[in-house]
Amino acid sequence: MPTLADVGKAAGVSRGTVSNVFNRPELVRPELRERVEAAARALGFGGPDPKGRLLRDGKFNAIGFMPPGAYAIAEVMRSPYGRELVLGASLACDEAGTTLSLVNGTDNTRFASIREALVDGFILGHSADIGLITSAQRRRLPFVILESDAGPDINSIKIDGRSGAVAAVRHLTELGHRHFGILSIRRTPGPPIVHMPGQAKRPLLAGFPLDDERLDGFKQGLAEANLSIDDVPIIETTPGDPSVGAVVFDNVPEATAILTMSDWQAITILDEAVRRGIEVPGHVSVIGFDGTAESARTTPPLTTIAHDVIGKGRLAARMVLDNEPPRQVVLAVELVVRASTAAPRAKIR
Amino acid sequence: MPTLADVGKAAGVSRGTVSNVFNRPELVRPELRERVEAAARALGFGGPDPKGRLLRDGKFNAIGFMPPGAYAIAEVMRSPYGRELVLGASLACDEAGTTLSLVNGTDNTRFASIREALVDGFILGHSADIGLITSAQRRRLPFVILESDAGPDINSIKIDGRSGAVAAVRHLTELGHRHFGILSIRRTPGPPIVHMPGQAKRPLLAGFPLDDERLDGFKQGLAEANLSIDDVPIIETTPGDPSVGAVVFDNVPEATAILTMSDWQAITILDEAVRRGIEVPGHVSVIGFDGTAESARTTPPLTTIAHDVIGKGRLAARMVLDNEPPRQVVLAVELVVRASTAAPRAKIR
Repeated sequence: MPTLADVGKAAGVSRGTVSNVFNRPELVRPELRERVEAAARALGFGGPDPKGRLLRDGKFNAIGFMPPGAYAIAEVMRSPYGRELVLGASLACDEAGTTLSLVNGTDNTRFASIREALVDGFILGHSADIGLITSAQRRRLPFVILESDAGPDINSIKIDGRSGAVAAVRHLTELGHRHFGILSIRRTPGPPIVHMPGQAKRPLLAGFPLDDERLDGFKQGLAEANLSIDDVPIIETTPGDPSVGAVVFDNVPEATAILTMSDWQAITILDEAVRRGIEVPGHVSVIGFDGTAESARTTPPLTTIAHDVIGKGRLAARMVLDNEPPRQVVLAVELVVRASTAAPRAKIR
Repeated sequence: MPTLADVGKAAGVSRGTVSNVFNRPELVRPELRERVEAAARALGFGGPDPKGRLLRDGKFNAIGFMPPGAYAIAEVMRSPYGRELVLGASLACDEAGTTLSLVNGTDNTRFASIREALVDGFILGHSADIGLITSAQRRRLPFVILESDAGPDINSIKIDGRSGAVAAVRHLTELGHRHFGILSIRRTPGPPIVHMPGQAKRPLLAGFPLDDERLDGFKQGLAEANLSIDDVPIIETTPGDPSVGAVVFDNVPEATAILTMSDWQAITILDEAVRRGIEVPGHVSVIGFDGTAESARTTPPLTTIAHDVIGKGRLAARMVLDNEPPRQVVLAVELVVRASTAAPRAKIR
C-alpha cells in the first residue's frame, strides 16, 4: 500500500499537506487539493487507514447502546419506547459528532459484545445483570445503566416506577374500577405466562428491578382501595408480543381495566380490541406506561404514565460522553389522562 | 498491563485457557473459569484489548448506516420511514451478530465519517452524492446505495417511485379530484419552500433522483386526467417539519387532495387538520408514501403508496454483509387504500 509520503512525493508536496487533504480538506487550497487527490488516485492510495488513527488516538468516536433484557437490536427498533430511547441518545451523539452503535445484547453474545465492541463507552439496558456490569467495569470505559441503581460508584438513570404504578391504579379506582388485569413484562424471550388468582403461589419470572417496583406500586394502589393484588390476574408478556391482547381478553374477560407496564403492551391490546369489537374505554379501560409520542396517536389516545424517554436517552449518552464522576438520576413520572380510560360500564361484558 | 500469560501463570493454567475464559467461556469448566477469573481480578487484568483483536482479525464486526440527505442520526430516528429502515438493517445485523453503527451524515462530517467509521461496510442513504460514493470506494469496503442507481458496479436498492406516484394520482382522479397540492421533499435543512403556479419558472431545490422520479410520476398521472402539473402548487418540505400542515392549508386552501412523498409528511398534515377542524377525507383527501406501520394507525388510517421498507433495510444490510458481486435492485410499490382518501365534497371549503 502506498503511504502519505509516497503521495506527497508524487504530488510535490509535504506529507503533512497530504494528511490535511484527507483529514482537514478545508485547510487546503482547491487546486492543491485536486493535485494531491489526482496523485492519490494514480497511486491507488485509499486515504489514511482508520485503524492507524485508532491506534494513534485510542478513541473509537462511538458509543454503544446495548438493548435491555435479552433483546436483539431489532426488538428495540420495534418498540415505541426503544425507538425514543435511541432517538434521545442520537441527539447527544449528533451534537458530539459521535457514532451510535447498536450492539446486540442477546444472551449468547452480550458478554463478548461488551468485551469487543469498538466503542468509547456504553449505555446498558441490562439493568440488573451483575456479570454485565463486571464486564463493563473490566474495560474501564464509562458506562451508564438504565432502570437500576447499582450503587454510588456506577452511573444510573431510572424512573420512579413505584409512584407511576400507584398513580395508574388511583386514576382507575377513582373512576370506579374494581376489576383489574395486570400486564407485567417478561424480560426473556417466550410466550405470555398467565398467573390467575387463587393459585397457591404465583412466582413471577424475574423481571427487572423496575418491574418489581411497579408491581409493588400496583399492590399499594390496590390496597388503598381495599383491593388485594392477590385477587388480580397477572400476565407476563414481552412488550411487543402480538398475542398480548388475545391472552388478556381470553383470560381476564371480567376485568374492566387493564394495567400495563409499557405503551407497546397497551397499543397491542387496543389492536386486539378493534379485532374483537371490544370498545375502549366503553367496555374496558386500558392504561399505558412510558408516555411515548405514539401513545398520543392511537385510537383512542392512550392514558399513560409518562416520563421523558427522549430526555432519558439523551442524558444517558451525555453521561457516557462526559465521563464525569458517577451520578444516580431518578426521573419523575406523571399520569397523562387521555381517552382510553373512563368509568366502568355497570354491566360487565 | 498484565497479559494473558501472567494470568495463566497466576492461575496455574495455559495462556490458551485464559484466552478461552475471556473469548469462549462456554468451553471452560465453571470451577476453572472461576479460578482464572479470580486470578485476573487479583492482577487487575481487564480482558484482551479489543484493539488487539481488531488488528489481528482486521474486522470491525459492524456495519455503518449513514442517513440520507443532510440528516443527522436523530432525524432518522424521528422518521417513521427511517425507523423501519433501521429496523430492517437491525434484523440482518442480529442474525449475523453484527453491530449496527448509526453514523452521522450531516454536511460537515460525512466525508470524515465515511473515511473513519470503524465498520466493515456501509449502507449509504446519500443516494446521489458522487463525492460520498468516491470516498466509500476509496476504503474498498462493501457498500450499498439507497434510492439511486449508480451503475452496474455499485450495489443499489431503489423503489419504483414513478409508478407509485402515477398510482397515487390515478387513485385520486378516479375519485373525482381535480384540485391538488403536491408535497415534495427538501433534502437540505430549512423551512418549507412554496412554489405557486403561474410563477414563470419553479426551479425546485435539487432533491434526490427518487424525488424527481416521483414528480415526473405525478406529472404523468395528472396528464392522464388532462391536468397539468404546472397548475398545481408544489411545496418542498423536510419530511418531519412540524409546519408542513400549516403551510399546506395556508397556501393551498382550494386543494381537495394532497399528494405527498412520505407518510411522515401526510401524518403531519393529519395533525394540523385536527388542530384546524378540517376533516380528512371529508374536506380534503391526503395520501402518504412509504407504507410504514404507523400509517395504518393514524386517525383516519392513511391511504399510501407502500413498499417493504423493513425488507429494504434488511436486504441492504445483507448486501453489505455478504459482499457479493454488485446488484441493482428495484422494489415494487403498491397503492394501499385506507380511509384518508374519498371523493371530493362538491362544495369547496
